[in-house]
Amino acid sequence: MADEKPNGSGAPGGPPAGDRLTYEDSGVDYDRIDPLKVLAQRAARATGANLERAGAHTGVREVAASRGESAYVVDIGDAYLASITECLGTKALVADAMREVQAESGVSRVSGPPVSKALGRTWYDHIAQDTIATAVNDLVTVGARPLSIHAYWAAGSSDWFDDTERMNDLVDGWKAACNVLGVAWGGGETPCLTGVVEEGAIDLAASCVGIIRPKSRLTLGEDLAAGDAIVLLESSGIHANGLTLARKLSERLPAGYATVMPGGRKYGEALLDPTVLYPPVTEAAFEAGIGLRYIANITGHGWRKIMRHPGPFTYRITEVPPVPEVLQFMVEETRQTAEEAYGSLNMGAGFALFVRPEDGDAAVACAEAQGIRAWVAGVVEDGPRQVVMEPLGVTLSGESLALRD
Amino acid sequence: MADEKPNGSGAPGGPPAGDRLTYEDSGVDYDRIDPLKVLAQRAARATGANLERAGAHTGVREVAASRGESAYVVDIGDAYLASITECLGTKALVADAMREVQAESGVSRVSGPPVSKALGRTWYDHIAQDTIATAVNDLVTVGARPLSIHAYWAAGSSDWFDDTERMNDLVDGWKAACNVLGVAWGGGETPCLTGVVEEGAIDLAASCVGIIRPKSRLTLGEDLAAGDAIVLLESSGIHANGLTLARKLSERLPAGYATVMPGGRKYGEALLDPTVLYPPVTEAAFEAGIGLRYIANITGHGWRKIMRHPGPFTYRITEVPPVPEVLQFMVEETRQTAEEAYGSLNMGAGFALFVRPEDGDAAVACAEAQGIRAWVAGVVEDGPRQVVMEPLGVTLSGESLALRD
Repeated sequence: MADEKPNGSGAPGGPPAGDRLTYEDSGVDYDRIDPLKVLAQRAARATGANLERAGAHTGVREVAASRGESAYVVDIGDAYLASITECLGTKALVADAMREVQAESGVSRVSGPPVSKALGRTWYDHIAQDTIATAVNDLVTVGARPLSIHAYWAAGSSDWFDDTERMNDLVDGWKAACNVLGVAWGGGETPCLTGVVEEGAIDLAASCVGIIRPKSRLTLGEDLAAGDAIVLLESSGIHANGLTLARKLSERLPAGYATVMPGGRKYGEALLDPTVLYPPVTEAAFEAGIGLRYIANITGHGWRKIMRHPGPFTYRITEVPPVPEVLQFMVEETRQTAEEAYGSLNMGAGFALFVRPEDGDAAVACAEAQGIRAWVAGVVEDGPRQVVMEPLGVTLSGESLALRD
Repeated sequence: MADEKPNGSGAPGGPPAGDRLTYEDSGVDYDRIDPLKVLAQRAARATGANLERAGAHTGVREVAASRGESAYVVDIGDAYLASITECLGTKALVADAMREVQAESGVSRVSGPPVSKALGRTWYDHIAQDTIATAVNDLVTVGARPLSIHAYWAAGSSDWFDDTERMNDLVDGWKAACNVLGVAWGGGETPCLTGVVEEGAIDLAASCVGIIRPKSRLTLGEDLAAGDAIVLLESSGIHANGLTLARKLSERLPAGYATVMPGGRKYGEALLDPTVLYPPVTEAAFEAGIGLRYIANITGHGWRKIMRHPGPFTYRITEVPPVPEVLQFMVEETRQTAEEAYGSLNMGAGFALFVRPEDGDAAVACAEAQGIRAWVAGVVEDGPRQVVMEPLGVTLSGESLALRD
């Protein structure tokens, strides 16, 4: 609950305001949500002492340094446990809308054969993977290996369950992602919450438990140092952040989600490319003995997440990965500045590894062995907390990322 | 996701159908939801092998016998981990409605002073406890000690967050319940899901991780035997199951939630008595060396949950705890038979411990030392799987509880 607020994005000298559409315009008002986050963070922090009190006879205590990081860590003696709950957000609404758009034959699926039907494919196998990715990609940033996942699928009405194809896709996609990750799908909740969830809609979330063993795998950033290499891992597209903006944009495109982008793909279809699952890369990196100093999942604040670590470091980016067409399209259509775009979307880099200076190439090799492109994209320097994107001539300031109360 | 379907409740010789309102009438159609549950359970079970495959070099494996139980269990070597995700359901709608009813001064709070305001108290401290209780009361049935809780609070619109008193109550109640339980509030998600969650509403859920150490605490029922004592623990009221029925009933009461029951309390106020937190009882029982053979949380199927264990046992109930006024009121107003009522509501017993024959009284003492009334209410017998409620002359058949695929 620490990380959803983009604090301002002022764009002096940016494009004219006419057709622009920024993250702030897209409808979610973080200034109103933040007080609850702060209240909850403070109250939650105070409960950490509960474990220490009880720990005298059970050998458990919280790892207080994990508060403010992407997963919560408890020391159970010979290992650490990490846990997290994350939700998909509003991406299911895109899948529902795209189902109305006649799908082209031969669209790739997470599992099973290509589908071509009058109603179009459901895309729920893709958003199942997205939902799991939101949880596990955060969980592994503290060095955890994911063990089990619980599903939380809350529908707004009983008739949600009448669509057998959609249910099958959701289940198949969820299972397929668990198999890729080597985790157990432990169970879940599938309530029908009429009056709470909108009729016809579904609220998808996942919780995940992981283990950090040996304990030396714990990655909270205390060793991050000037000179460390910044390795960026490719994203597949928008992942699960920025969807409110993407939906707003679809409303003003004449053909909506069916709009064909310059490369020939439909906008809505490209939005639904499933989020990359990064845990196989972190597992491979730990097994290869790569010195992981810090790990950041690039989600809700775009590249501002590169400076997620609280220390006084400047992150100098010298190589910028290619931008997925769907993000390039969104940025152009909404007339965002580079600062706005990189400050709110992943722009082609969905995950960042911060490694010992000599381990950059090995980290890239680990990712590419898992089929995920990666780049030694920059270096950590002593200096004011900011991300300097040299090829773009843009700097994201530390004040624009307030993750910790 | 194993346990929300009440399979039929036929009431031959019951009251006339005119003003009756049964669980089946109340709107949630489990026959439509069940196919997804079955699909998900099968797919989830198949992923258990993922841990065993990876376990060769990490020492983890699933405890397959926990599938179908109330929490999922993973063996990590020197301990077991248990995990769960549960949601509140629709009880927040009752809190929202009751806020419109002028609260009487002096209503007890989980924390803080009594409140008396024009708008009425928010009750969100109570439903915070309910949400946590749904998760932890399930988690401890496998013998786990709860360690950490994540909050999932998904609002339908940014203006949900404008009500400072309600936010404070939610946070305070959540924290207070964590303190009672001795668990750490690890974090959570507070998304705004416009278009998914209804405007003005909030979807409340909790995930919980627990540890089972020593491993001998694992309680999956393999030792349950004829002669074991059934100890029932009091409920505080409706808890978090049966709220859809309760809401339907309020619609046809002339004064709705403001209806004053014979004892003088408002119907809606009594519905919002927070769910009992049972983990302090199970902790005390383990510490006291009581032989816990099986544990059942009495939730969605009422007393049918007493026969949650899959074995060929008859559960003979010889003492029936007093029924909380709000449940008695509901049963009378909806003209339910005893079979329907005990088959869907907790009717005064929110939790069941199955203990060695000689440990019944000690288990009762453990509960009462935690301020929770308890009764040695019956005995486990060899026989067809059913619950025989002798004082009521009613039997709940095993076929009416299908929790396992």
